[in-house]
Amino acid sequence: MKKYTNTSDITSLANLVDEAIALKKNPFAFESLGKHKTLVMLFFNPSLRTRLSTQKAAQNLGMEVMIMNISHDGWVLEFEDGSIMNNASSEHVKEAAQVVSQYCDILAIRAFAGLTNKEEDYNEKVINAFVQYATVPVVSLESATGHPLQALADAITLAENKVKQKPKVVLSWAPHPKALPHAVANSFVEIMQLQDVDFVITHPKGYELDTKITEGVMIEYDQKKAFENADFIYTKNWSTFNDYGKVQSQDKNWMITQQKMQGTNNAKFMHCLPVRRNVVVEDAVIDDKNSLVIEQAKNRTFAAQIVLKRILENSNSPLKRA
Amino acid sequence: MKKYTNTSDITSLANLVDEAIALKKNPFAFESLGKHKTLVMLFFNPSLRTRLSTQKAAQNLGMEVMIMNISHDGWVLEFEDGSIMNNASSEHVKEAAQVVSQYCDILAIRAFAGLTNKEEDYNEKVINAFVQYATVPVVSLESATGHPLQALADAITLAENKVKQKPKVVLSWAPHPKALPHAVANSFVEIMQLQDVDFVITHPKGYELDTKITEGVMIEYDQKKAFENADFIYTKNWSTFNDYGKVQSQDKNWMITQQKMQGTNNAKFMHCLPVRRNVVVEDAVIDDKNSLVIEQAKNRTFAAQIVLKRILENSNSPLKRA
Amino acid sequence: MKKYTNTSDITSLANLVDEAIALKKNPFAFESLGKHKTLVMLFFNPSLRTRLSTQKAAQNLGMEVMIMNISHDGWVLEFEDGSIMNNASSEHVKEAAQVVSQYCDILAIRAFAGLTNKEEDYNEKVINAFVQYATVPVVSLESATGHPLQALADAITLAENKVKQKPKVVLSWAPHPKALPHAVANSFVEIMQLQDVDFVITHPKGYELDTKITEGVMIEYDQKKAFENADFIYTKNWSTFNDYGKVQSQDKNWMITQQKMQGTNNAKFMHCLPVRRNVVVEDAVIDDKNSLVIEQAKNRTFAAQIVLKRILENSNSPLKRA
Repeated sequence: MKKYTNTSDITSLANLVDEAIALKKNPFAFESLGKHKTLVMLFFNPSLRTRLSTQKAAQNLGMEVMIMNISHDGWVLEFEDGSIMNNASSEHVKEAAQVVSQYCDILAIRAFAGLTNKEEDYNEKVINAFVQYATVPVVSLESATGHPLQALADAITLAENKVKQKPKVVLSWAPHPKALPHAVANSFVEIMQLQDVDFVITHPKGYELDTKITEGVMIEYDQKKAFENADFIYTKNWSTFNDYGKVQSQDKNWMITQQKMQGTNNAKFMHCLPVRRNVVVEDAVIDDKNSLVIEQAKNRTFAAQIVLKRILENSNSPLKRA
Repeated sequence: MKKYTNTSDITSLANLVDEAIALKKNPFAFESLGKHKTLVMLFFNPSLRTRLSTQKAAQNLGMEVMIMNISHDGWVLEFEDGSIMNNASSEHVKEAAQVVSQYCDILAIRAFAGLTNKEEDYNEKVINAFVQYATVPVVSLESATGHPLQALADAITLAENKVKQKPKVVLSWAPHPKALPHAVANSFVEIMQLQDVDFVITHPKGYELDTKITEGVMIEYDQKKAFENADFIYTKNWSTFNDYGKVQSQDKNWMITQQKMQGTNNAKFMHCLPVRRNVVVEDAVIDDKNSLVIEQAKNRTFAAQIVLKRILENSNSPLKRA
Repeated sequence: MKKYTNTSDITSLANLVDEAIALKKNPFAFESLGKHKTLVMLFFNPSLRTRLSTQKAAQNLGMEVMIMNISHDGWVLEFEDGSIMNNASSEHVKEAAQVVSQYCDILAIRAFAGLTNKEEDYNEKVINAFVQYATVPVVSLESATGHPLQALADAITLAENKVKQKPKVVLSWAPHPKALPHAVANSFVEIMQLQDVDFVITHPKGYELDTKITEGVMIEYDQKKAFENADFIYTKNWSTFNDYGKVQSQDKNWMITQQKMQGTNNAKFMHCLPVRRNVVVEDAVIDDKNSLVIEQAKNRTFAAQIVLKRILENSNSPLKRA
């Protein structure tokens, strides 16, 4: 693996998931792989799970980890080519990415969507600039339009918990008071298309995701109908894509309730967290034995660890050193 | 030791102090104990001594350490059961505590008193929620009403510096411009009751601490009288308990001066730091050879280290693994 | 080496540079030197290069690293002797420096110039207070008037890239929208005087640096003339020294352009970064193959590493332990 900024960087999801599950049983098996290797994590946005699980994953592999909240602790970065930097930004990403690359072996970055400029977000201005200028492999800790480590953790959790060959998986929108990015939903849609599942998306009309991502996926506007026979309910709020970054609906009828879960095939409940209880999902659902949210968060460590392991193996390979 | 959020988690203070003093002489003696073990420290409030000494203590034991200023770097947490999370808070402590537990072996938390809601503070809303939901041992890095690591460091310092079997120890209130929590004072009162000292508290009328904590302790409102024959003067400001969280007095006559120290039995001076010079204590006292404040801060490392060691030993024990 | 807060702490620059270049080839050669040793880094100001390169340098030597953004995470410090601390500051540097020294083996500090009080800045109030009260060696991560780690990295870069025995090196002021400290310029001037170079400073009239530092150095107010036959152009903005801390000029004619570089002896371009593109320097110059800015940043690691190594060796020496 040369980088991991998108689910499309995965060649064989099944292999990746299998190896991650093996790491989970024996997290320190490859602790010499990361010796003398350093992971730098740059955060433009808050993080709890991603930060701690990725740091843990790197340490399990014997890596050193250096973390910066770059918005608070560093300099304001410029991303435009040719700009006259006479205003707020003190440093161009060209320098920042090249410089930081010299202090580490893998560079991980979190940079959320701004949700004001669709083109800028969907062009992945920030993470793509780091990919362009960095001289070491880049890992996304959630970018404007994708959260591939979350999606991989979700795939691991699904593999561990499915009881039939081809389960029915439903991605359901749920209400939320704030405008949220599409990153988690996008990457989940993508990774579901890499495996053998009966996949359905349900959301209110107007909440269609980017059709380039959902092409070929069944969309069912009737949440109740979508839930029928479902084995997994994956819930997530997102803001509108077409009328970009808006909260068009806070319709409480879309909240995931115990009653709705009873209309499924005893489905497992999934959410990436953080989750607003009794807005996105009822207490009764998230506290139920069928809730996988804590296990999903646990699997963040092993998703990150398998990605870091693959990148280290690739950069350690004799061919690359030659 | 299963957790350390309160001085009541101590079974034998004398043993703990002895072993801490032994660690101080040989800090790396148990550096394999923490191999493959991780300490997470979550800070809701500022910290200098606690943060650095606890990190050092964990590293002395060979642990990995992951630190978050959770108020700045993470999500706003919700603590109420059953709340409809439609406002500021993005994540419930139920999830946060369970999730973070999966990334570490010990979870340490600093969460100061708000000083506006006495019941909430004295019910230890924050740290008790983490104790309730975490699945790993929890350590207090100062909670709303206690600072047990500071108290343990104080006990170590006292043991190292006492020259008679049963010294007279005086806890003296001193003035301060801001309303401060009771945490340090409470835990000091508690730990003094776990050893053979002649213990007296002195403060202005109206500054009584929680009587559940001071029950049986002599209170002397005349500071001068309290200081007579004292071997240790431990100074600390706190806000009022009864009229909760107020600054009722800034009476400069309560500042610790050289003249007052001359009325003692050549007493050692103690303070947990940070201290406001010439408000709480005169320069002449804190700069004197009888001042133990720097040694107290040094002992924070070994207080933390003995606590972490005991917790690691407990969780490593064959019985626990079975 | 007993400390490194000033270029005057260097005894033999040539030896230091040679050894740094050797470390660059074999960064982990001395990884047992820092075993059981801890570096604390305290930041009063933002940092990217300094923070990451110094952390990396310490880890290359096998040290543990503990980092605090002391302005955000810690307490407001007091620096005046004898002050009555009844206002903003909660802790005196006397305590802070002594306390932190107990948690580490080397203490590194970044504290920029305030640029409002010349005397306070040029007396190095902050870093000198830490040097005075700390009980471990202190390293500057940029102080009010010097940036000796940057200067050492610059000397390494110069040594690696010079093609003649005595190159002509020009330090050129360039425009900038904000008032910047003199630290980088001062330390660069000092370190140029420790080696055999033909050194010239060029800046607009009124931008003279402290004459105590530039004594004996040629100053040429005509930038074009200064650039003639130059082998290295080192660019940096600084605010005025005499009329302290002011932006007297933003004259775009002082920006470093490709045209101006053509008036040199095919000079290499140097800057400490972060740099404002097309304000301080044209894209064409910084993106040219003659630009050394990325290499300079890389050498920050080895400048820090040789300094930490020398300090560790000194404090490990039998004489010191005796």
